[in-house]
Amino acid sequence: MRQQPKALFFDVFGTLVDWHSSITQQMTNKLTPLYGPLDFAAMAVAWRARYQPSMEPIRQGKRDFVPLDQLHQENLQHVLAAHDLPILEEGLCHELAMAWRKLDPWPDVVPALNKLHEAFLLAPVSNGNLALMVALARHAEFRFDAILGAELAQTYKPMPEVYLRSALLMGLPADACMMVAAHNDDLQAASKLGFQTAFFPRPSEFGPDQNTDLLAEADYDVVAHDLEDLARQLLR
Amino acid sequence: MRQQPKALFFDVFGTLVDWHSSITQQMTNKLTPLYGPLDFAAMAVAWRARYQPSMEPIRQGKRDFVPLDQLHQENLQHVLAAHDLPILEEGLCHELAMAWRKLDPWPDVVPALNKLHEAFLLAPVSNGNLALMVALARHAEFRFDAILGAELAQTYKPMPEVYLRSALLMGLPADACMMVAAHNDDLQAASKLGFQTAFFPRPSEFGPDQNTDLLAEADYDVVAHDLEDLARQLLR
Repeated sequence: MRQQPKALFFDVFGTLVDWHSSITQQMTNKLTPLYGPLDFAAMAVAWRARYQPSMEPIRQGKRDFVPLDQLHQENLQHVLAAHDLPILEEGLCHELAMAWRKLDPWPDVVPALNKLHEAFLLAPVSNGNLALMVALARHAEFRFDAILGAELAQTYKPMPEVYLRSALLMGLPADACMMVAAHNDDLQAASKLGFQTAFFPRPSEFGPDQNTDLLAEADYDVVAHDLEDLARQLLR
Repeated sequence: MRQQPKALFFDVFGTLVDWHSSITQQMTNKLTPLYGPLDFAAMAVAWRARYQPSMEPIRQGKRDFVPLDQLHQENLQHVLAAHDLPILEEGLCHELAMAWRKLDPWPDVVPALNKLHEAFLLAPVSNGNLALMVALARHAEFRFDAILGAELAQTYKPMPEVYLRSALLMGLPADACMMVAAHNDDLQAASKLGFQTAFFPRPSEFGPDQNTDLLAEADYDVVAHDLEDLARQLLR
């Protein structure tokens, strides 16, 4: 490893929180009364599958930046229409999109963040907007020093501006910041810009059939089993 | 009072931290070896007196935004020159400017913030840049949900953009946010934009001879003795 970083920048969805279980549960609770029993685990994956394509026009400058909360609403209606289900009235759609503000952490995360907080500055560098991250940090009891990420750069990861603006706001050069993620594309984008990188897999992020991001696909500064293991490696 | 706010936005220098004592102390420690004994309490006031005029060209769009850390350095050299003292070499100037990242809180602040944290989202809306606020929050043990303020709007208070961008990022309308400050100009700017406002005085912010901001000069939502008293009023 290079010199110890001063700040740890976290990917959040998948890396720190188990969105698939939480979203499946919340879709089941809110949509079963409307539509009857459906495969909500698959619908959660379908909702998430709209995540990257919905950001693409914003990355390309073809659409002005809108926060992820809004993309979540648009993407949900899109998924419902694709399943030949009637779209939701606006209030309920908004309410269900807010489910992304109440995702539960993986069990290793909170104890590890509390240990890491003693030695490093901690901030999410997520595609989630600031208000979403504030609410999620409250829900999951994450202790961050600041909320950084996509909204402050007005574009979405893996665009370089998101990482660079986050380091600039933290007042640190890229190599004093370590991007922590369970996703190879996120880490490779950060690594190209000079950031330190740490990977651990979340093999059930997308449910039982996941076949991506099971292994580190590049030469990261640290590869760990989970955040607890990363904390152990960084703090030893 | 109107409906209970969801977020409290804090002015920091003077309102939460006692910059005058901390800066006087740190100037004394760092500059006595160079210049001998001087009236460092007065020099701390002189340093701070450059604060508003140094931001003015940025507010007027005549200068690109630079973070407060940098203005602190420029203003320090200006004050030394005005006292016919040789200016500092860059490393020492930077180091002394970092004193603004290590200001001690007024004694009522930490216990009150910890109580308020249970009922409200808390964020600084300060002219201090994000990295400065992160460091200060660590030093003073302030628990914030996010760091908002001038740097994210790329201009300085009391420009409306600073307050409005902070509310937008927090995902709240202005009237769900309460600006908390010991300064009438800050609160009047926020109030005009529809923010709730809370005032308490810090009668020794500028040292023993202070004659400004001793009283609430407008009709704020809450007027208190200090942050402890504000917490008591908001939480009853």
